[in-house]
Amino acid sequence: MSAEAAFIDSLRALATSAAARGLADDAAVLEVGGATLVLTHDILAEGVHFRPDDPPGDVAWKLVAVNLSDLAAKGARPIGILLGFALGDEQWDRAFVDGLGLALRAFGLKLLGGDTVAAPRVLGLTAIGEATGPVPSRSGASAGDSLWVSGTIGDSGAGLRGLRGELPSHPALVERYRSPRPRLEAGQRLAPLVSAMMDVSDGLLIDSARMAAASAVKLEIDLSLVPLSEPLRATAGEDRGARLAAATAGDDYELLFTAPPGRSSEVLAIAEAIGLPLNRIGAAAQGSGLRLTDGGEPVPLPPCLGWEHG
Amino acid sequence: MSAEAAFIDSLRALATSAAARGLADDAAVLEVGGATLVLTHDILAEGVHFRPDDPPGDVAWKLVAVNLSDLAAKGARPIGILLGFALGDEQWDRAFVDGLGLALRAFGLKLLGGDTVAAPRVLGLTAIGEATGPVPSRSGASAGDSLWVSGTIGDSGAGLRGLRGELPSHPALVERYRSPRPRLEAGQRLAPLVSAMMDVSDGLLIDSARMAAASAVKLEIDLSLVPLSEPLRATAGEDRGARLAAATAGDDYELLFTAPPGRSSEVLAIAEAIGLPLNRIGAAAQGSGLRLTDGGEPVPLPPCLGWEHG
Repeated sequence: MSAEAAFIDSLRALATSAAARGLADDAAVLEVGGATLVLTHDILAEGVHFRPDDPPGDVAWKLVAVNLSDLAAKGARPIGILLGFALGDEQWDRAFVDGLGLALRAFGLKLLGGDTVAAPRVLGLTAIGEATGPVPSRSGASAGDSLWVSGTIGDSGAGLRGLRGELPSHPALVERYRSPRPRLEAGQRLAPLVSAMMDVSDGLLIDSARMAAASAVKLEIDLSLVPLSEPLRATAGEDRGARLAAATAGDDYELLFTAPPGRSSEVLAIAEAIGLPLNRIGAAAQGSGLRLTDGGEPVPLPPCLGWEHG
Repeated sequence: MSAEAAFIDSLRALATSAAARGLADDAAVLEVGGATLVLTHDILAEGVHFRPDDPPGDVAWKLVAVNLSDLAAKGARPIGILLGFALGDEQWDRAFVDGLGLALRAFGLKLLGGDTVAAPRVLGLTAIGEATGPVPSRSGASAGDSLWVSGTIGDSGAGLRGLRGELPSHPALVERYRSPRPRLEAGQRLAPLVSAMMDVSDGLLIDSARMAAASAVKLEIDLSLVPLSEPLRATAGEDRGARLAAATAGDDYELLFTAPPGRSSEVLAIAEAIGLPLNRIGAAAQGSGLRLTDGGEPVPLPPCLGWEHG
């Protein structure tokens, strides 16, 4: 067990409220008055989650987006944010505020409060949302359900590799790394249909493994069905290695969900209505863990399924 | 204007929701589903807000306490917290979790969620509370109101100076520096009586100046009325210099509030009921800013009114 996993395990003893969902979910779900609040807090640290030379406005956008992505996976409408900000140099900070304003306007959100400190650049954000219907968890998948993913997978990872000079750099991929789009509308529309839902933040395979564990099922993924974008295929190819890289890269902020096969036409109607691809990539079965195939042929799991940075 | 003040000013343009209270208050106040939620996010950074050799369990306590102190000032009952934690060495982290558990049990609170990162030790916490009645702001003081403070002032600052070897070290003062007690019960009982309330986190004088500015009144403080503890007087004395040091030291987490003179007997009845001193230290008058006296004699304001670390 990693030090982080051990630490989270020790925190679990303090998270005995039903609202905490055993710290096994993307967000806390709190019943207040007649409303269902969804609360999440994600951190971005310089050198860990963003590069020192990333444009500060994009860092602001990403900080908002990764938090809203957790709300999206709960089908929640965002209400506002609290910001924890480490003051650095004035120019960086000013560009950050500009980017924050852009993100808040884009999502129709208000800054509610927070705190600033003079300290290393570790940025925290709390996002508060209100559920618009039932709140899906990671743990509801049943054997027989179809496994779906929104959008395309691996773009952000390929964008980062482009910035590092490991792949040809493509602006659309860098854009997905720097300015991910949380799937808020998809989340709210899908929430009533799905049996389990979470966002893909650390990698399709590792997040699928987490859903499988939470739901006590086996998830079978057909690599040949994992949706890849045109720019990704142009820069990284689409052979099995490229597909495995995409499925373990993380930072996708797409939605991963399961639904009974009988609801497929409703899922596809949502995709059509909002103009976001929703693709079936596999199914849940009795058992545990992940099983990978590529067009019918079994594929061994790679040693690293994704990020474990937390 | 400091860089931090300029930065917060630029954020203010993004905080146009009534819930944000213009970022001029200790917490956001959000109406959700018939309930009034109070949300706050405060950060503690190593080397800024705590010392590298402070016991990790006390750092956890303090992180909880400084956030709950903001809820106290809103008269809110705490519901739960989200934790942003920077993983360091395992021993430190384990002791931190022990202290966190202690604090959560002491306040009857649950951990709801949060995030961990491997990054420099910058700890963020979001506390969520529910208002139990009207929610006081900083801006409601009127000319003629009495100015009150809870508990004793300057203990925490003297405790820190003891740790630094600048004063004789006294365990009760170190305890107040390391393990402050947010005045939750006092806050909930006082909220219906007060015209303005906030917690004293950065120093009695600087926080009073902030309340005066928010309320557009002058606050007159009689230094001889500022309550000092027995251990403080024993180690730091009680001459004017010692009183000014106490009133600018910060980290008190006491409640500062105004109330019409006609409510004084109710305020004193609360003090009696909960066994916490509540002392009148001055009054609000027409005008602006702070005016200091010491037993009737005018005292010039010190150049530094308190912490401006944020």
